Amino acid sequence: MIKAKGMAAFNAKEPLKPWSFVRREAKDYDVIIDIKFCGICHSDIHTVRSEWGEANYPVVPGHEIAGVVRAVGPKVTKYEVGDHVGVGCFVDSCRECAHCKADLEQYCDVGMNATYNSMEKDGVTPTQGGYSDVIVVDENYVLRIPKNLPLDKAAPLLCAGITLYSPLNHWNAGPGKKVGILGMGGLGHMGVKIAAALGAEVTVISHSDKKREDAMKFGAHNFISTKNPEVFEQNASKFDLIINTVSAEINMNDYFNLLKTDGSLVVVGLPEKPLSIHPFPLVMKRRSYAGSLIGSIKETQEMLDFCSKHNITPEIEVIRPSQVNEAYERVIKSDVRYRFVMDMSKI
Amino acid sequence: MIKAKGMAAFNAKEPLKPWSFVRREAKDYDVIIDIKFCGICHSDIHTVRSEWGEANYPVVPGHEIAGVVRAVGPKVTKYEVGDHVGVGCFVDSCRECAHCKADLEQYCDVGMNATYNSMEKDGVTPTQGGYSDVIVVDENYVLRIPKNLPLDKAAPLLCAGITLYSPLNHWNAGPGKKVGILGMGGLGHMGVKIAAALGAEVTVISHSDKKREDAMKFGAHNFISTKNPEVFEQNASKFDLIINTVSAEINMNDYFNLLKTDGSLVVVGLPEKPLSIHPFPLVMKRRSYAGSLIGSIKETQEMLDFCSKHNITPEIEVIRPSQVNEAYERVIKSDVRYRFVMDMSKI
Repeated sequence: MIKAKGMAAFNAKEPLKPWSFVRREAKDYDVIIDIKFCGICHSDIHTVRSEWGEANYPVVPGHEIAGVVRAVGPKVTKYEVGDHVGVGCFVDSCRECAHCKADLEQYCDVGMNATYNSMEKDGVTPTQGGYSDVIVVDENYVLRIPKNLPLDKAAPLLCAGITLYSPLNHWNAGPGKKVGILGMGGLGHMGVKIAAALGAEVTVISHSDKKREDAMKFGAHNFISTKNPEVFEQNASKFDLIINTVSAEINMNDYFNLLKTDGSLVVVGLPEKPLSIHPFPLVMKRRSYAGSLIGSIKETQEMLDFCSKHNITPEIEVIRPSQVNEAYERVIKSDVRYRFVMDMSKI
Repeated sequence: MIKAKGMAAFNAKEPLKPWSFVRREAKDYDVIIDIKFCGICHSDIHTVRSEWGEANYPVVPGHEIAGVVRAVGPKVTKYEVGDHVGVGCFVDSCRECAHCKADLEQYCDVGMNATYNSMEKDGVTPTQGGYSDVIVVDENYVLRIPKNLPLDKAAPLLCAGITLYSPLNHWNAGPGKKVGILGMGGLGHMGVKIAAALGAEVTVISHSDKKREDAMKFGAHNFISTKNPEVFEQNASKFDLIINTVSAEINMNDYFNLLKTDGSLVVVGLPEKPLSIHPFPLVMKRRSYAGSLIGSIKETQEMLDFCSKHNITPEIEVIRPSQVNEAYERVIKSDVRYRFVMDMSKI
């Protein structure tokens, strides 16, 4: 077994604490990864606080993992020692259902093996995530991080990056398309950069003017502050696609009206409560309200290569693992520009 | 001016009463139509009772109009005296916006000129609908009813028919696709017949078992009664497309879970209240919740020709115009199999 050190939650109420645990030895197709950096995602917080159902404690969260290959199992062909690699939100899936076979493992019929608070392929060993110094993952669920992307900045691409890239890609964001990014936090700011690089006309839709300058720096062409309610009328029927990264409760109908005929509003964050939705604005312009969940392994690799080619990286604040609890409070207050990344060498 | 007799609402509370009014003489491109039959649509009731905003009384409702050409204006080229024709939910539109130019007049930027409770192209004359003996409509907004479709049965195609045909067509219902029709009333029963003729595998999803036999007779391959809550689990992730014709409040999340990955649930009825929707089932399988509004003139003609070719007609109960108020009460109680059509020669 491989000794690992991590930051773990032992219950829903207390702060995360250092924890020593073990990872499996590399099996035939496994890659042992020295974790260099791990991003902090809001879903880590929801999970360890049992806000999405009772967690299976202890939980080492973290699914924005960037590191270097320490060793590989005897049958591994895709990676070598020293390669820069990443691990995202899942570490395995059934591999047999129609979704897995169609490169849509994120929608696996059996349910993917999430990177933490889930079970390994054996069905009995809890998975533990990237707030640690080492992880062992089957090579088919490991991503290659192109060498021009620094590992600290690459880490958030594995969740925030793919979560935005996948719907932008699926709903054809590109030249001639008007794309709105609703909310510019950890997810949203990646959306701005990726949508702009895809060639779309990008508008940030935010509840205040505070991030206007940043938005333009990230590649946005327009900025709408919804503090002025007239903007909804002024921008009616404008967008082909709006990606909603906001989990706060908002009046969805106002936002549906910003879509053109046949436009889509796609949710990538999960609000805690259901939203009150009248289908009227959907019916009147054949609009859609849709959801999207991270992305497949194939699409995640495509996203990493795309970010490499276009030099797209998130804005990050690097912290030590011991600062994680304080960082959680700041994430909840949206007091981060725009993603916390932990330096796992400091654990 | 042309004398017309109709059934009109004079306020939101009282029953419809006979009313004599006038239609314009035929202008260059107008067609004067002797109305033979007019269907009763639930939206007639919502409108005359001011449930969708204060109506502009008096209102002669009716937008499922089938008749025979009495006369045509001097420049009309599309129709001749004696032709079987229909009029649906709108009688004009701006003709200049991108939607009108793209054969999507139902989504006209300026707002189409609805068949009743709206304004004629002149902007000042109220439109009056098909609960009358004659109507005058620009030839571009008149549909040709193929001669093998009896006029009484053709009438409901102009709203109920196109309202279902358009989304089935747009979302590619056809061979290899599993389509659910949620609710089998006036709209739903047309959906079953059309989807089956398009080659899809059709399932009726109903709140009781009462209409099972009818559903099969109309071409459905399966029938699900939601009285047994286990059906939601049994049919999870089954459908490519569900058309929701139900305006009653239902638990949408149960129905989203019936959709496959990338499936769409399309609303064609308008519930009075907003629905509580959690995006979780949308996110987890990249599903969409969409709306669709009737169809364009071009698509309505295509639908009429399709129904002619496949011998598709609604199930109707023909009544006299004097029975309209009683019929309204029965529509509200869903006590009609499946559409009331008024014989306008009896007015």
